[in-house]
Amino acid sequence: MIWCVFYILAKTGESLITPWEVSDDIDYKKTMENFGIKPIKDLIDRIGDPHYLMRRGIVFGHRDFEKILDAMEKGKDFTVVSGMMPSGKMHFGHKMIVDQLLYYQKYGADIYIPIADLEAYWARGMDFETTRKLAIEEYITNYIALGLDPEKINVYLQSKNEKVKDLAMILSKKVNFNEMRAIYGFGGETNIGHVFAPIIQVADILHPQLDKRAPVLVPVGIDQDPHIRLTRDLAGRFKEYKFIPPSSTYHRFMTGLLGGKMSSSKPETAIFLSDKPSKSLRKKVMSCKTGGRETLEEQKKLGGVPEECVVYELYTYHLMKDDRELVEVYEKCKNGELTCGQCKKSCYEKIVEFLNDLSEKREAAKEIAEEIIK
Amino acid sequence: MIWCVFYILAKTGESLITPWEVSDDIDYKKTMENFGIKPIKDLIDRIGDPHYLMRRGIVFGHRDFEKILDAMEKGKDFTVVSGMMPSGKMHFGHKMIVDQLLYYQKYGADIYIPIADLEAYWARGMDFETTRKLAIEEYITNYIALGLDPEKINVYLQSKNEKVKDLAMILSKKVNFNEMRAIYGFGGETNIGHVFAPIIQVADILHPQLDKRAPVLVPVGIDQDPHIRLTRDLAGRFKEYKFIPPSSTYHRFMTGLLGGKMSSSKPETAIFLSDKPSKSLRKKVMSCKTGGRETLEEQKKLGGVPEECVVYELYTYHLMKDDRELVEVYEKCKNGELTCGQCKKSCYEKIVEFLNDLSEKREAAKEIAEEIIK
Repeated sequence: MIWCVFYILAKTGESLITPWEVSDDIDYKKTMENFGIKPIKDLIDRIGDPHYLMRRGIVFGHRDFEKILDAMEKGKDFTVVSGMMPSGKMHFGHKMIVDQLLYYQKYGADIYIPIADLEAYWARGMDFETTRKLAIEEYITNYIALGLDPEKINVYLQSKNEKVKDLAMILSKKVNFNEMRAIYGFGGETNIGHVFAPIIQVADILHPQLDKRAPVLVPVGIDQDPHIRLTRDLAGRFKEYKFIPPSSTYHRFMTGLLGGKMSSSKPETAIFLSDKPSKSLRKKVMSCKTGGRETLEEQKKLGGVPEECVVYELYTYHLMKDDRELVEVYEKCKNGELTCGQCKKSCYEKIVEFLNDLSEKREAAKEIAEEIIK
Repeated sequence: MIWCVFYILAKTGESLITPWEVSDDIDYKKTMENFGIKPIKDLIDRIGDPHYLMRRGIVFGHRDFEKILDAMEKGKDFTVVSGMMPSGKMHFGHKMIVDQLLYYQKYGADIYIPIADLEAYWARGMDFETTRKLAIEEYITNYIALGLDPEKINVYLQSKNEKVKDLAMILSKKVNFNEMRAIYGFGGETNIGHVFAPIIQVADILHPQLDKRAPVLVPVGIDQDPHIRLTRDLAGRFKEYKFIPPSSTYHRFMTGLLGGKMSSSKPETAIFLSDKPSKSLRKKVMSCKTGGRETLEEQKKLGGVPEECVVYELYTYHLMKDDRELVEVYEKCKNGELTCGQCKKSCYEKIVEFLNDLSEKREAAKEIAEEIIK
């Protein structure tokens, strides 16, 4: 996390950055070097109005993002594909992707949102109706409440999209089991549907080009890069289709409230978009892992460690869109001017404001979400 | 081959049979014992009007044929599924399956004819249009010319049948790569489509039950039994669908004209349904492998060996529907009353008669075949 603040400081002219030297980032750095992912910061000056997640280094890497930039700059067509496999309730970690979609929507992107009900069935044994219901009532409803224009997104269930399924069947001719094993760790005990699932996902990403030859962006977490590589490889193996290999961006993951992973199945680690302002929510926020010192005295003397603070992360990822405000908090914390108690209280207030607003919008969004899938 | 004649003799009361003792049949016998295929002869007395291929032991084995018999006897619904993967021109070896379909059509079967264009693409790299064209112009045209009622058959391309593809996706959840490797010999180098192909075939066989719960028969060559076993296994793993495990019958394969395999890619081994009466066709028949002796003298003294004679096989499989006539030829040959020259000449005449008749019917059939697939 540390480098993202330095990066903002750099953008605002207040410090130099060497983000890739931070030990926390060694894994990201290695992945980037091994697989040829480029840092987004090298493009940041070219991007007229970079997304705050880009400015803050949360969206930190890319492949071929230049193609998307070209389209954005020239007002040309481009497509964004962002699949989802609904599991449990939608939380702040999931929200990040919607924030990115909103950004591309502003630039006129065609947005495709595949619901991976086939994969959910094969890989997790979820039945189709459960997935559909969860996707609509929880995810798509929130996507729309968060600001996605229902008229401008293409939401579909994989199991119902003939074009996607048929393209997957075509593509499956040119990838063998050895490759799938190497990429996904499949073994003899893996069910055949599960082996097929990533090819459906490749088809999710490539199929918009069957209708319109425009560059495609897939914004993902870094863990999804194997899918992107497979997609780009397969695109290249079907010369007759003249696929443009998809571009991608990579984001970091939010830390859970207690410091580990943010997970739907551990409510104490996550803030859910459907959480209601309540004593228990307040308690959840007030129990957050922070970068505070052992004693108030030490805090005043040494300053806090926002780089290790989940509250600060909530600000960075979600609650403070204004860089100056964020830097101010950062510096006040570092200087020992802020106590964790104050900070968490103020964080809770921001969360309540956000949730109340979203809750209002969700009522109308829910009906629209139902309609979209019909 | 030998036992089929004895079997006919038995039916006509002229001899005893011990077909399974014949060395030629050892492989069939083993397969039957190992995999629980039952001899069709045990049912022959129950079958009111057994097909001549059954009477002659060419359709020699079955699983659960009793279910089909029940339906036939009671005039209830039943379904026959017979897929095809078109490759090259249709020959006498292929005709055998149509002869069986005609029999079940008489009993009111719903007949499904999947064209395995997906499998042809995955396993042989054939493009879809080539497969479609070949299937219609060569196979379906001949199927109709041979007497299948176009109104009563469901012909479809796998690649265009959503119900089949979707069912395959469901089924693929409960079969893993180890099983597919064990059954089909797939390895790491096998493309994923090819791995998926047998599951499409399983769906071909099971999908009629999604519309109508009636027993299904799949008449196949003995080499297709692994498909049948996989289909029956998978049917049992999806209790919620209440599939009736499909019944099957097994037929032997025609010997090629020169004694080896009959193959589309070796025209000298096969009589094609589109062959025209000609010198070269005559030559092909006159060059057939027979069971004749070295000299005419020996032939008269020892008699011929119809059990090793392709001409006799052509009679048995295709050209003599009357058992008495067939037995007469058999006995005359055995007694040395027939020479191979005479016999081949008479065989050629029968072939010419058959081909001329079929050729006439094919003109109209071709147009109908085009319509069916549209």
